[in-house]
Amino acid sequence: MSKALERRAKFREELILAAERSIGTGGLAGLKTRDLAREIGVANGAVYNLVEDMDELTLRVGSRTLARLDAALTVAESDGPDSPRETLVRIAVAYCDFAAENLELWRALFEHRMTPGKPIPEWAVSEQMNLFRHIYAPLATLFPRRSPEELGVTARSLFSAVHGMVLLGLEQKLIAVPIEALRREIAAIVKAMVEGLAG
Amino acid sequence: MSKALERRAKFREELILAAERSIGTGGLAGLKTRDLAREIGVANGAVYNLVEDMDELTLRVGSRTLARLDAALTVAESDGPDSPRETLVRIAVAYCDFAAENLELWRALFEHRMTPGKPIPEWAVSEQMNLFRHIYAPLATLFPRRSPEELGVTARSLFSAVHGMVLLGLEQKLIAVPIEALRREIAAIVKAMVEGLAG
Repeated sequence: MSKALERRAKFREELILAAERSIGTGGLAGLKTRDLAREIGVANGAVYNLVEDMDELTLRVGSRTLARLDAALTVAESDGPDSPRETLVRIAVAYCDFAAENLELWRALFEHRMTPGKPIPEWAVSEQMNLFRHIYAPLATLFPRRSPEELGVTARSLFSAVHGMVLLGLEQKLIAVPIEALRREIAAIVKAMVEGLAG
Repeated sequence: MSKALERRAKFREELILAAERSIGTGGLAGLKTRDLAREIGVANGAVYNLVEDMDELTLRVGSRTLARLDAALTVAESDGPDSPRETLVRIAVAYCDFAAENLELWRALFEHRMTPGKPIPEWAVSEQMNLFRHIYAPLATLFPRRSPEELGVTARSLFSAVHGMVLLGLEQKLIAVPIEALRREIAAIVKAMVEGLAG
């Protein structure tokens, strides 16, 4: 790599880390190119030599968040009995814990909207889809006769339902719940859903 | 009522309706006092003689949305067999339909944040809480031995889970689903949750 490219790679990494700190503290709404440029010591305009636009920057931060979520779910998978039902409950509770501990970065994953008309890049879609394997695998063990498509639908529904409970449970708004109570509720509901689906 | 008060009441109503149309079209982010003032024919500053602030205006629009949601859920309740399980499924599907048909106004209910430090007014909290009766009542029939507190927790979890499925299902993003498929999924998952909870 040439010196110039090395230098660019280094600044790009610093920019993404600065954006991650900024989102982690003040959420997506507080992300300002000018502040990031100052923090890493480049001119305002130079930011767009490092990333294509704010969409790419936000997605790169999201990519780091998803990698840490992936690691947390992988730990939860093996952190208890091998039964697919219990694994699904552990995964759901781990998702809740991750969201609580990374509140702003986790919110940013869902609040970010691409500039109108711009599709989400392929690499970002695959990273997001890849996380579904944590739910898909135990469901496939639990329901060996269901088609991959059916399992995909169930995985998506389970995820969305747990996401809703975490989202509203962590809101400091209408129905804020102490985290321990929220974890218990999520475990109870996921258990009920899985029992009910197994008929 | 004096002429001046009548006039104020009329402008206030017009302001709320203009804000509702604006949110319904362009979402909460597109709501601009200046546009509303022009639309109803008052000076910019006069808006804050009609409502306290943007929080109140947004909550008043939300109040109208909640009233229509309440009516839609009431229709769904009596629109089929009296069984509490089937009622819960109908309520969930009706919630999905309402969200799909009132996408921006429904989103605004959840996206609105009060100015930091300002609590949500009592009247708005009660209106929101009042809607839980649609879920609470069939759950109370289904689980007659559970305490009101336990039923409240279950009602909240069921609502949050369905909300999550509707939210991510209607997103034009990662996991957009055709509405008919979404309705089927929600019905299946709610049925499974209720079966599982009934053990």
